[in-house]
Amino acid sequence: MTAGQQPPTARGLSRRHLLLGGAAAGIGAAGAIGIDLAGRAGATSLSPAVDVPLNGTQIVPFYGIHQAGIETTPQGHATLVALNLRADVDREALRRMMRILTDDAARLTRGEGALADSEPELAVTPARLTITFGFGPGLVSRAGGQAPGWLRPLPAFGIDRLDPAWTGGDLLLQVAADDPVTIAHATRMLLKDLRSFATVHWVQTGFRRAPGSEKPGTTMRNLFGQVDGTVNAGPGTHDFEQLVWATGENPGWLTGGTGFVLRRVSMDLDKWDQLDRSGRESAVGRTLANGAPLTGTNERDEPDFAATTPLGFPVIPEYSHLRRARSENPAERIVRRGYNYDDVRVGEGISNSGLLFVSFQADVDRQFVPIQQRLDTLDLLNEWITPIGSAVFAIPPGCSPGGYIGDTLF
Amino acid sequence: MTAGQQPPTARGLSRRHLLLGGAAAGIGAAGAIGIDLAGRAGATSLSPAVDVPLNGTQIVPFYGIHQAGIETTPQGHATLVALNLRADVDREALRRMMRILTDDAARLTRGEGALADSEPELAVTPARLTITFGFGPGLVSRAGGQAPGWLRPLPAFGIDRLDPAWTGGDLLLQVAADDPVTIAHATRMLLKDLRSFATVHWVQTGFRRAPGSEKPGTTMRNLFGQVDGTVNAGPGTHDFEQLVWATGENPGWLTGGTGFVLRRVSMDLDKWDQLDRSGRESAVGRTLANGAPLTGTNERDEPDFAATTPLGFPVIPEYSHLRRARSENPAERIVRRGYNYDDVRVGEGISNSGLLFVSFQADVDRQFVPIQQRLDTLDLLNEWITPIGSAVFAIPPGCSPGGYIGDTLF
Repeated sequence: MTAGQQPPTARGLSRRHLLLGGAAAGIGAAGAIGIDLAGRAGATSLSPAVDVPLNGTQIVPFYGIHQAGIETTPQGHATLVALNLRADVDREALRRMMRILTDDAARLTRGEGALADSEPELAVTPARLTITFGFGPGLVSRAGGQAPGWLRPLPAFGIDRLDPAWTGGDLLLQVAADDPVTIAHATRMLLKDLRSFATVHWVQTGFRRAPGSEKPGTTMRNLFGQVDGTVNAGPGTHDFEQLVWATGENPGWLTGGTGFVLRRVSMDLDKWDQLDRSGRESAVGRTLANGAPLTGTNERDEPDFAATTPLGFPVIPEYSHLRRARSENPAERIVRRGYNYDDVRVGEGISNSGLLFVSFQADVDRQFVPIQQRLDTLDLLNEWITPIGSAVFAIPPGCSPGGYIGDTLF
Repeated sequence: MTAGQQPPTARGLSRRHLLLGGAAAGIGAAGAIGIDLAGRAGATSLSPAVDVPLNGTQIVPFYGIHQAGIETTPQGHATLVALNLRADVDREALRRMMRILTDDAARLTRGEGALADSEPELAVTPARLTITFGFGPGLVSRAGGQAPGWLRPLPAFGIDRLDPAWTGGDLLLQVAADDPVTIAHATRMLLKDLRSFATVHWVQTGFRRAPGSEKPGTTMRNLFGQVDGTVNAGPGTHDFEQLVWATGENPGWLTGGTGFVLRRVSMDLDKWDQLDRSGRESAVGRTLANGAPLTGTNERDEPDFAATTPLGFPVIPEYSHLRRARSENPAERIVRRGYNYDDVRVGEGISNSGLLFVSFQADVDRQFVPIQQRLDTLDLLNEWITPIGSAVFAIPPGCSPGGYIGDTLF
């Protein structure tokens, strides 16, 4: 190599590094342009060409200490399914069921057909597919296991208008991917596996921005237009580990697992339309433009709850969502991983929209419940949102090849 | 510039060219990795740096001779809405309605908020948003215009089990983009515009593979796993122009427009499961693996309908979908642009899935109807599919800035 060739090679390496960084983070959509950028970006004997895969070929490992789909950067789409066990399903049948589901989930998430896949050609595009299983109180009891104390319906909140059709369930499937065809196929394969074990209780589908729509790391906006989820511990951080993964205070079989809360929150867009921007910003405590707290200029600025207006009122109102959601107790935090929903409207009104609020936390009673109790007592946002569904599941830990999800319980 | 710098510059230019080629074709998802690849790819004084935009920022021009969303490479998602005009909407009101809709569609598709946008922050990600308007017979009649002869419900077919809830309508909105949040927002803005003019009759949402999931140009598969739409004239080709754009045989106001057919085709996946692969391939006349005709090896091989098996039977059965859909008359062709649907199931069975079959053709009676009549008489696929909704709309031509969609009619 001569000195004259140095700059391009350095640029090539740098580019390759960036590309791979993107791919490793699950965002390698560069492949979408249909050519191997990295492979052409100045390959030399020092740096073998590397394929940057199409987004559809990206795989999130299924096996591990924890289940996938929790730490995973949220995919563009998710389908959540709750099932109720059939009356004759005993502990032995549950073990068989979870072995079958685990085997097919492992196959599908790596881009292979399920064991008896009737449309294997639809399985070849995993698109970061993750399949996460959760156990409701009914399943843990049927298994004869010890349930964590928080594995029960949430306490009744004053704002709740729960529809039983969106509430509870024995078994949860969280099927998420960057491609809706992948989700449709994987969900069907799992439901076929489950035919003799359980019946579908509810199905909820949600979406975020599509892969590649926005810069990675952009906080999602909900359909009110709000930046939603700014304060969220990132995967791999100490906070995330502490808040999410169950430890000794839970039953032993849950170690490495976590608690899952789903709240189906209907958002009244037609009523929201009647509120002006400053009213909206007061309700939330953040600007609509970039999600900065009303006392700050950037989204991640720390809110100053002591700051007052010239008239002496708090800049961030006492009744705002931001103020009410915040606790002095750092343990009262959760990790959110929700999705928007926009279903076909029924009756009058234009929209049937809202949020599939999903949170993960090691102890639902200690972490989620106090936050929701504060919001239930006072949160101006309650004028426009109504929880219409609710479910709590225990998410067992991951498993290794040869094992199966739930093998610590059965 | 020295000779030693030549190779990197050449590579840089070539890469830029490829990237821009991808972006021009609407597939520039390289931006998804969050860095400006082209800008760093060896910019010199000869070649100014060019930003490759995020997929979400890509814009399909709204104004033009034809409406967008027809020639446009199909986006990942589409929402189709049919509305019925309110009783008091006259010709003058229709003109006002289409001016408002056109203005907001032009804004939204270029990534700006609608005129009175309540959530303008959701509008900044056009993601190749197209909004296409269609007129049903009721609207054309209300406008006092001359309807093309084919603008009426399709003839009754024997396999049809049409649900009025999925059939007909006065006004069509086809809202398509690579991002479902973009579609949710744009659809809501348009429906707000329409509140005083019309009521929603039906809403149908569909999807294909996500942007970047597969190599550009890959023919979509439906939820039966079939390669679906191999024989489709590409935008810009002579065939496409001839088949799609209305000319003098239609009323003058439709010149540059086209005819739109939507068939909601339920696909019985539970029954399809009972058919083995060779049965499936016989039903379609193509292989499942790559969509090649049963007489060929590649997807686009011309089928040989004369070829016979050693026993003397046709290799491509007479009753196959491929054989029955094919006409000797080259004018009896259409251009398809459909989407899969996978709605929450009702009652027994696992899936509520199918195809939003969408086709464009200058003359529905001459092009679409003969094909459907042949398929209705005999097509083995009819065992597993059932049309449950049907609608025909006239798609007026595009307009220029200052004009509005439908200005040739009113």
